[in-house]
Amino acid sequence: MKLVALVALAGMLWMSGPQARQAQASAPETVAVETAAGVTAAAAPVVAGEAAGEGEADHAEDEHHGPDPASFFLVIIGILVFAKVFGEAAERVGQPAVLGELVAGLVLGASVLGVVPATGPIAEVIHLLAEVGVAILLFEIGLETDLKEMFQVGASSAAVAIVGVVLPFAAGFAYWFYADPSIGAQPDGITHGIVSVFVGATLTATSVGITARVLTDLKLMHRAESKIIIGAAVIDDVLGLVILAVVSGLAGGATLSAFGVARTFTIAVGFLIVAVILGNMVAPKLFRLIDRMRVRGVLLVSAFCFALLFAALAAKAGSAMIIGAFAAGIVLSSVNQFDLIVERIEPVADIFTPIFFVSVGAAVNVGLFIPGGPDFNAAVLVVGAILVVVAFFGKLLAGYVVGWGKEKLNRNAIGVGMVPRGEVGLIFADIGRRAGILSDETFSAILIMVIVTTFIAPPLLKVVFKPTADDIGAPQPSGGHGH
Amino acid sequence: MKLVALVALAGMLWMSGPQARQAQASAPETVAVETAAGVTAAAAPVVAGEAAGEGEADHAEDEHHGPDPASFFLVIIGILVFAKVFGEAAERVGQPAVLGELVAGLVLGASVLGVVPATGPIAEVIHLLAEVGVAILLFEIGLETDLKEMFQVGASSAAVAIVGVVLPFAAGFAYWFYADPSIGAQPDGITHGIVSVFVGATLTATSVGITARVLTDLKLMHRAESKIIIGAAVIDDVLGLVILAVVSGLAGGATLSAFGVARTFTIAVGFLIVAVILGNMVAPKLFRLIDRMRVRGVLLVSAFCFALLFAALAAKAGSAMIIGAFAAGIVLSSVNQFDLIVERIEPVADIFTPIFFVSVGAAVNVGLFIPGGPDFNAAVLVVGAILVVVAFFGKLLAGYVVGWGKEKLNRNAIGVGMVPRGEVGLIFADIGRRAGILSDETFSAILIMVIVTTFIAPPLLKVVFKPTADDIGAPQPSGGHGH
Repeated sequence: MKLVALVALAGMLWMSGPQARQAQASAPETVAVETAAGVTAAAAPVVAGEAAGEGEADHAEDEHHGPDPASFFLVIIGILVFAKVFGEAAERVGQPAVLGELVAGLVLGASVLGVVPATGPIAEVIHLLAEVGVAILLFEIGLETDLKEMFQVGASSAAVAIVGVVLPFAAGFAYWFYADPSIGAQPDGITHGIVSVFVGATLTATSVGITARVLTDLKLMHRAESKIIIGAAVIDDVLGLVILAVVSGLAGGATLSAFGVARTFTIAVGFLIVAVILGNMVAPKLFRLIDRMRVRGVLLVSAFCFALLFAALAAKAGSAMIIGAFAAGIVLSSVNQFDLIVERIEPVADIFTPIFFVSVGAAVNVGLFIPGGPDFNAAVLVVGAILVVVAFFGKLLAGYVVGWGKEKLNRNAIGVGMVPRGEVGLIFADIGRRAGILSDETFSAILIMVIVTTFIAPPLLKVVFKPTADDIGAPQPSGGHGH
Repeated sequence: MKLVALVALAGMLWMSGPQARQAQASAPETVAVETAAGVTAAAAPVVAGEAAGEGEADHAEDEHHGPDPASFFLVIIGILVFAKVFGEAAERVGQPAVLGELVAGLVLGASVLGVVPATGPIAEVIHLLAEVGVAILLFEIGLETDLKEMFQVGASSAAVAIVGVVLPFAAGFAYWFYADPSIGAQPDGITHGIVSVFVGATLTATSVGITARVLTDLKLMHRAESKIIIGAAVIDDVLGLVILAVVSGLAGGATLSAFGVARTFTIAVGFLIVAVILGNMVAPKLFRLIDRMRVRGVLLVSAFCFALLFAALAAKAGSAMIIGAFAAGIVLSSVNQFDLIVERIEPVADIFTPIFFVSVGAAVNVGLFIPGGPDFNAAVLVVGAILVVVAFFGKLLAGYVVGWGKEKLNRNAIGVGMVPRGEVGLIFADIGRRAGILSDETFSAILIMVIVTTFIAPPLLKVVFKPTADDIGAPQPSGGHGH
């Protein structure tokens, strides 16, 4: 029954997705028929506009450039329904729901069903909604984060993050520079050294989103290991900004400047600190004020805007949006209406976050893995496999720099938690290709590394983190209950 | 304190809104400075992309066409914060919150702050989110609607709707045709008769969204009058589709076809009936199935998708999206998880619906009312004032066709409930201008009619509906509580 519905939906979406513009174009025709009269191009589309229950007067606008609302609705429906059905399937086979959402994205992506387009107006809208989704996710993680606990694990997180960046970089660079597996033609004017540095850099990324979501799905956010992982992942995002800036400089043929590197680093770290300190000073007053407001939904809207504002300011300041959203969550975890905020933001997160994970999955070109397919290349798969090994052990070993003291820590869990490269890895790889540093073959091999590390992390985390009795009763504000 | 924050925010938005593209362009520069090296155009924007925590690999895309996420976030923040602050202010002075949201739109619109742009990529995204907002609003109204009660008031609603369309049309046509206040040059090839028909047609619209929201704000949805108004407004949307098709045909120089008119009507009405019948057959089974799913947020997401699906199907079938969303609500009001759906959908509505009302307000050109301003024209104001009177009494009198039996009905309340033209009126007027039927002056006069009827309805409804003691204890699922 569920599958039948799914197939039917897939068919409908298959209709709506790629042919969105066509459907748009046909709407006026329908009306022309209905009026059984020659309706001019000037008038007819507006009838279609009305049929779509327009909310603004500028529909001349979206009729030319913007997607038609009905087609947009169908794409959103496809994303959410597939995300939930695949997420449910994943949980039924004992996997985290996020794995199902990534697979849903794979299926809906341009390389399979094409329901989630890679370019065009709908792609842009989905992209923006995905940004809201990841921001709200990190906001929720921040809400669950106790600053004191973060400081307690701060040193451990920093150690894991730094080693988790140095090891993969060194190993990746060494492999590429000495073993020289160069696949595809070496782009003009790019030395083997630069390519090697770049390959190393792409191995350093960590996707806090994937791991955080898995830990939430598995109800393990309260574990010491989880706090270390989240802290390390956030630090990795900061380091990622620095590495990305440096690598981009190299891509542009720039010579490195210690000042420039230091500055990028300072801005990224500084924002997080300043945001949390200032936030903690302002938020309590602000939310006492909001508590006196009576209009519907004011608390939720305020929290939602608070998260988006911090995210936007972080980006404007040259830091990462998710760092800002995470900071916003940490700040609001200390206000009086905390419980209500957690309760109210959850349904909003339920709508937006799947859009992010489906988007990540949709960016994958399945053709890479299909023997005989146009994009298939055995050599690429081999090199990709080697990069996967380097990427995996580089982060896994990073987990072993902590937990040597009296406290017993699950080092494998910490290491595995750092493995997924996710969307950050995709971005790293994409710069290299667009800057002409990576041949298409090298790009594909890196892409395989990103995909595999992203998809194996959820099931592996489930294995290395063996839920203990005390996890069951533990507080799980944002995870847990079916609806 | 609240105002200070508001002013500060306004400043920030003033920065972000109109200059969004510039901000976008400057992001890479920032990074270039950070790396203290000549970063190539190819690489730099991606760093900005990373700074924005990209969720997809196709950011080459949105760097060229799409809005930058941070600027988009700031626009959303501006819309929601202004909506809540003005909504709160409205309630403090005893007005419905939606009036405040319309005013917030007025302030944020292109004619004042320009935070909510009238065109461009961000305008398109906001437009799509507004569509989601009005769909969710009508879905909530549908959830509160008891089908049996609707049938009980069905005859009354139909009477009010039909008279509310015939009266304003006749009066508007007569005024224009005989008094002939033609302002501005008569467009070529357009007879005075066609203009008169068109002016009459624009007077027939009803915005169910505005009235429904006001009745919810005032906690009056349970009143018999409210049910008649909602029913009549929905019927008006159906009639609106027919009128719009006919008028568009005229605009295209078509001769009317009874068949065409009948067909449009049948599709619009047919969809509503079929959707509710089929929905009632499928929904209970579907939601029993969903009840057995364990993945987070599955019930909310299912209900959300159900509403969007009905809305999209309605549009594809040539009916109005809001009719589909309303039908979806009616259907789900009979499933077991009804209470949970109402509770879970509310926060989602709190985020999306204000975007719709702010968008409606943002479509208004304030310049029309500023003496000495470039768009100011006294003759237009006079004709506009006359149209306001016609529009107001045309709908008010429609309320008097019911309640003559034993049951005591507040006829003024019913009539006033039909007065706001809202976004439907804006669309009607816009067709006329773009089809070359209305001179700019006539268009402006009609726009004034739409604006005034939309803005006076909320306060007037508050006056004519005197809340009685039994309203206080009455069930108000989606309205009411501050957060």
